[in-house]
Amino acid sequence: MRDPDIDTGADTDVSGRPLRPRTVDLDRFFRPTSVAVIGASDTPGRPNTGITRQLRAWSERVGARMHAVNPGRETVDGLPCYPDLASIPSEPGEDPIDLAVILLADPAAVVPQLVEAKVRFAVAFASGFAETGEEGRAAQRRLEQLIADAPTGLRLLGPNTNLNAFERFRDDLSGPAIALITQSGHQGRPLFTLQELGIRLSHWAPTGNEADLEVADFVQWFADQPEIGAIAAYIEGIKDGRGFLLAADHAARRGVPVVAVKVGRTDEGARMAQSHTGKLTGADDVVDAAFKQYGVIRVDGLDELQDTAALLARAKPPTAPGVVVYSISGGTGAHLADMASAAGLTLPQLGQAKQDELHQWIPEYLSVANPVDNGGHPVGDWRGRKILDAILADPDVGVLICPITGPFPPMSDKLAQDLVEVAETTDKLVCVIWGSPLGTEEAYRTTLLGSSRVAVFRTFGNCVKAVAAYLRHHEFVSDYHSPFDAAPRESCAGKAKAQRVLKPGEQLSEFAAKQLLRAYGIRVPREQLVNSAAGAVRAAGVVGYPVVLKGSAPGVAHKTELGLVKVGLTSASQVRDAFRELTDNARAAGIPRLDGVLVCQMVGAGVEMVVGMGRDVTFGPTVTVGMGGVFVEVLRDTAVRVPPFGPADVHAMLRELRCWPLLEGVRGLPPMDVDALVDVVLRVQRMALELGDDLGELDINPLVVLERGKGAVALDALAVCR
Amino acid sequence: MRDPDIDTGADTDVSGRPLRPRTVDLDRFFRPTSVAVIGASDTPGRPNTGITRQLRAWSERVGARMHAVNPGRETVDGLPCYPDLASIPSEPGEDPIDLAVILLADPAAVVPQLVEAKVRFAVAFASGFAETGEEGRAAQRRLEQLIADAPTGLRLLGPNTNLNAFERFRDDLSGPAIALITQSGHQGRPLFTLQELGIRLSHWAPTGNEADLEVADFVQWFADQPEIGAIAAYIEGIKDGRGFLLAADHAARRGVPVVAVKVGRTDEGARMAQSHTGKLTGADDVVDAAFKQYGVIRVDGLDELQDTAALLARAKPPTAPGVVVYSISGGTGAHLADMASAAGLTLPQLGQAKQDELHQWIPEYLSVANPVDNGGHPVGDWRGRKILDAILADPDVGVLICPITGPFPPMSDKLAQDLVEVAETTDKLVCVIWGSPLGTEEAYRTTLLGSSRVAVFRTFGNCVKAVAAYLRHHEFVSDYHSPFDAAPRESCAGKAKAQRVLKPGEQLSEFAAKQLLRAYGIRVPREQLVNSAAGAVRAAGVVGYPVVLKGSAPGVAHKTELGLVKVGLTSASQVRDAFRELTDNARAAGIPRLDGVLVCQMVGAGVEMVVGMGRDVTFGPTVTVGMGGVFVEVLRDTAVRVPPFGPADVHAMLRELRCWPLLEGVRGLPPMDVDALVDVVLRVQRMALELGDDLGELDINPLVVLERGKGAVALDALAVCR
Repeated sequence: MRDPDIDTGADTDVSGRPLRPRTVDLDRFFRPTSVAVIGASDTPGRPNTGITRQLRAWSERVGARMHAVNPGRETVDGLPCYPDLASIPSEPGEDPIDLAVILLADPAAVVPQLVEAKVRFAVAFASGFAETGEEGRAAQRRLEQLIADAPTGLRLLGPNTNLNAFERFRDDLSGPAIALITQSGHQGRPLFTLQELGIRLSHWAPTGNEADLEVADFVQWFADQPEIGAIAAYIEGIKDGRGFLLAADHAARRGVPVVAVKVGRTDEGARMAQSHTGKLTGADDVVDAAFKQYGVIRVDGLDELQDTAALLARAKPPTAPGVVVYSISGGTGAHLADMASAAGLTLPQLGQAKQDELHQWIPEYLSVANPVDNGGHPVGDWRGRKILDAILADPDVGVLICPITGPFPPMSDKLAQDLVEVAETTDKLVCVIWGSPLGTEEAYRTTLLGSSRVAVFRTFGNCVKAVAAYLRHHEFVSDYHSPFDAAPRESCAGKAKAQRVLKPGEQLSEFAAKQLLRAYGIRVPREQLVNSAAGAVRAAGVVGYPVVLKGSAPGVAHKTELGLVKVGLTSASQVRDAFRELTDNARAAGIPRLDGVLVCQMVGAGVEMVVGMGRDVTFGPTVTVGMGGVFVEVLRDTAVRVPPFGPADVHAMLRELRCWPLLEGVRGLPPMDVDALVDVVLRVQRMALELGDDLGELDINPLVVLERGKGAVALDALAVCR
Repeated sequence: MRDPDIDTGADTDVSGRPLRPRTVDLDRFFRPTSVAVIGASDTPGRPNTGITRQLRAWSERVGARMHAVNPGRETVDGLPCYPDLASIPSEPGEDPIDLAVILLADPAAVVPQLVEAKVRFAVAFASGFAETGEEGRAAQRRLEQLIADAPTGLRLLGPNTNLNAFERFRDDLSGPAIALITQSGHQGRPLFTLQELGIRLSHWAPTGNEADLEVADFVQWFADQPEIGAIAAYIEGIKDGRGFLLAADHAARRGVPVVAVKVGRTDEGARMAQSHTGKLTGADDVVDAAFKQYGVIRVDGLDELQDTAALLARAKPPTAPGVVVYSISGGTGAHLADMASAAGLTLPQLGQAKQDELHQWIPEYLSVANPVDNGGHPVGDWRGRKILDAILADPDVGVLICPITGPFPPMSDKLAQDLVEVAETTDKLVCVIWGSPLGTEEAYRTTLLGSSRVAVFRTFGNCVKAVAAYLRHHEFVSDYHSPFDAAPRESCAGKAKAQRVLKPGEQLSEFAAKQLLRAYGIRVPREQLVNSAAGAVRAAGVVGYPVVLKGSAPGVAHKTELGLVKVGLTSASQVRDAFRELTDNARAAGIPRLDGVLVCQMVGAGVEMVVGMGRDVTFGPTVTVGMGGVFVEVLRDTAVRVPPFGPADVHAMLRELRCWPLLEGVRGLPPMDVDALVDVVLRVQRMALELGDDLGELDINPLVVLERGKGAVALDALAVCR
């Protein structure tokens, strides 16, 4: 039986990974018509009693009928209590139970009755699963299997989750809301508390151990809810990389920002994250890259999560990227401008006419170019509002930031009021930084927080980071093209050829690795594999002097150090000598068997790069490009992406590299063939997608990128089969 | 007449810069016995009236007699008012006026009477000086000159300063205090407000335009005051680089931390900073380096300034560098551990015995290795305190951080109380992060802020940054050796030789630049300057084949691109041909006159570095070391220091470089002669100090660092005279 709530998206790319997200309609989870509490209790002092009562209150708020289920009692708090789900009387034609909350230690035991009763959603609070070790992991796998096998499309939240979804949300706030997803309930508490500062929160999904429902399912559904302005997430581990990216892609297409803390910046975090949620934490650079590809905004602290999500949920799209800093102190303006620029914000110099206009109200000796320093006094009277109106009327200005570091009521109260009032008149973003460490002041608590149109911050740092994220988000979505639309669905012709070269578990010889590259259309030097000095001389005649000789053997890296490379050979006698020396060195190095000796064309000067593929435990195959040669390991100047991605992403990768100027052409050096480099990276992506199951690692190093128009040549390659 | 309050420190280094700080005894500034207010007023509504009254109240608090001075009135608020300072009656033997506060628009006009009355300190509030443009700068220079010429040692604060020094500080707080220095009063307000959260502030020096007294004078004096635990500074520009460093050195010797915001991270900030305080903002990398050399802790936001200064002022030195994260939620612990590690903190894994001990009170399935996750319940009863005691008893633990992201009174109130109580029993650092965005909770306001022994933060980010600064500070001072003690006072023998080579305003030829290097004992290749093909062949015989030929001429850079370098010449005929080709190319390039042609020894393979000297507008000569060759400009892998510095600083510079592994020896490559490189950097420092007035720039590029024991050779050098 096909579950009507789920569209599993049969479409896959060449790697066999889905190209369409799983979509779970969560409406009946958050707004059920009927709720069953399995293990309901009214025994004083028992934890389940409090939970039962909270669920009853929540059911009443959302308009659901609550049924108590517990074989050990007749009633619970006056409600009739049933021994099992099947005993709950239902009218003919009535819907099945939408939501069953399981308060038992062994949720698996009730799955059969959930299936029998065609329950749509279940929540399992019990802990003791993957977070506790091997035994718990096994128990969780059994639970996962039960849910996966359920013929009715039962969906489960948990285990190891809690009541966060069923808390009392403020319903008196309007405007776009934040929806929250957390893998640790405690970590969501500050964001929930934001409601007391006037920030609307509409949903909270505490996903716990994610035996079934996971972060991606909630991202996917939240992105479609009209009242949700931003999705905030606290993530320790991503269960399924592709699933997460498909959900992020959906949010990006819908223009809904996803702001996330992802633990695992360092091993310390990863160590704890693993033992906490029972999931592996992916390599952090890959997480960064994947987030960037789909516009997921990564922040570090919960305070940044709050501030950034609140801003993105509520602010209208920018009309211009220009930021104006406006303050009652030149020092404050200088400091904030400094931090804003460091955060990547653009502070346009205001035009002379605008400056003249501002100088009607601001003394001549104060700078109003941006930052605008009003010197203090004008904010205390009618001039304050004039200045704000004039700044916001400038078409180059999309954002106004007003830092109030020290409240001085005669000025700051009026300033706060003016800011709130002017924000009502414009769709431009008005930000205020309330710098007092107290936060008990009336202008802050009442005036500023009372407005849903002013974005209020407590620190310069969080303000500039959030504004930068806001501007980047809107730039990103306005120009977003889903990589999944263009992802290859059919293997290319080279795949069959390449697969013939692969040898399970082996590190291929250079010759074999280059056959892989050839199969995917990546250029290698003119070269021949020979087995005799005479053959080498003949080959040199064909490829053309000068030549390079290299010993080619499986399982050998660092050929130069073993004396297996001879460069710049210009004559037959040099080739003959080199052949002998090289075979001698191979013997001396204990290499049992050379494939043969490669006689290769010398390739002209260029920029040495590395292009490679790796494998991430969360996201699968990855593609890396960076500075090649000895610098790969020393300078670690690399950029990574998760397939699928397109040429624009490769260009963005290259611009992330410190060595980018070498490719672009610096002082006296010509520009290099960047298009050829991009083409190689895309071909390696194709290999990663098509051969990823069999090919564990591939490094082209160096890939010599020649001058523009002359291409790029893979001088050496290392391939490790799985 | 010598001013008894000032020791100008006649001792200088070879550059002529002082080696001893100017020390101004500011006791009578902050605690005067008599104060004169020049321009005192009691006219209702006039700004000077409010100022006069505030100064009168302050004088009473500090026990000073206040005199009103104003030729236009007989009395001010009932006090007798004198027409000028000379008219103030004084008892025989009485001290002169300690402090005169000038409320007039033209403070320069009263300087003669300040001198006449032997006033020690004056404060000038008037604005309209260097912050307003050229005219104001000229007025300020005149004022500066008047003060400098005053024979009585009059010291002036301002102009363009304010009343911050004379505010009402809380005197009911005990323990080490923060002393505050600001170049913009508004920017100090949040730190002043910290007093309302129980953080003691003892002094506030608003230095304004610094016509005389500057940040350094206050750092110097504050470092000697026993009640001051940390100095916090908001700096837009540093008036005198050496003076600032000498004061920072003094604080470092005394172990007193200096925490500073220094505006000028970006040009935006610098642009505003300049127009605001009329001072040039130094290049930011040099500021970073100078701060690092003297242990000045640089922070970005005012919130970080508050949190870091408060922690450093109050915390005892660490007993161990180990940090333990302790929380009621595994997710919270994982997140904070992640951020702590990323900030460079060390989280030692607790020993098995300690873990067993903790598991007496914490369920077995929770991880207590560090982070310690107590699962919540144990903090609600007697176990909470046991756990804290046990953690703090571990000798590897110097710091405990307890993040409370969501207050849940049944647990968090008790936890807060336990933390406050345990902090009383230990000198170890106990930090709490109160993660609620409200900050109105009782446990926070009363329990935690009521303790002077618990360090309280609002964000994970500020906590880990402050703790990292705290640990680094104590490591730094425990092992601090003042570079001024070892700074060279006498010129070396090479200076005279070098000076003969310098030509004002010229870029020297390679040959001449290498003479400079030789004068300072820096190794260059064996080479001869010749003027004929025959001479070149003779020279090649002397230096030994293979050789390099290079055209040497003043004013020529990028010789390779002009065809003025021929490498790898192995025979007389090659040398002859190369000589001709090279002189032809020089003519073709329009170079009027070659010094001659350098015939140089070929130097073996090594790591190409650049070592150079530059000039910073604030700090004077600087020394840079980095990766050489084309990578200088592309990879910008460089480290800079401000002289004087010693060998340990050079080693630290090298470890900052991304290319450090190349010097250390990576995969198959030998370790390089790092000692020789350090020696060259120190010799360049010597040149910077001794020749800095005449030599504007020097680049040794490349300096080839050979294998360990084989030295380092300057292959090329570029020198620009001033």
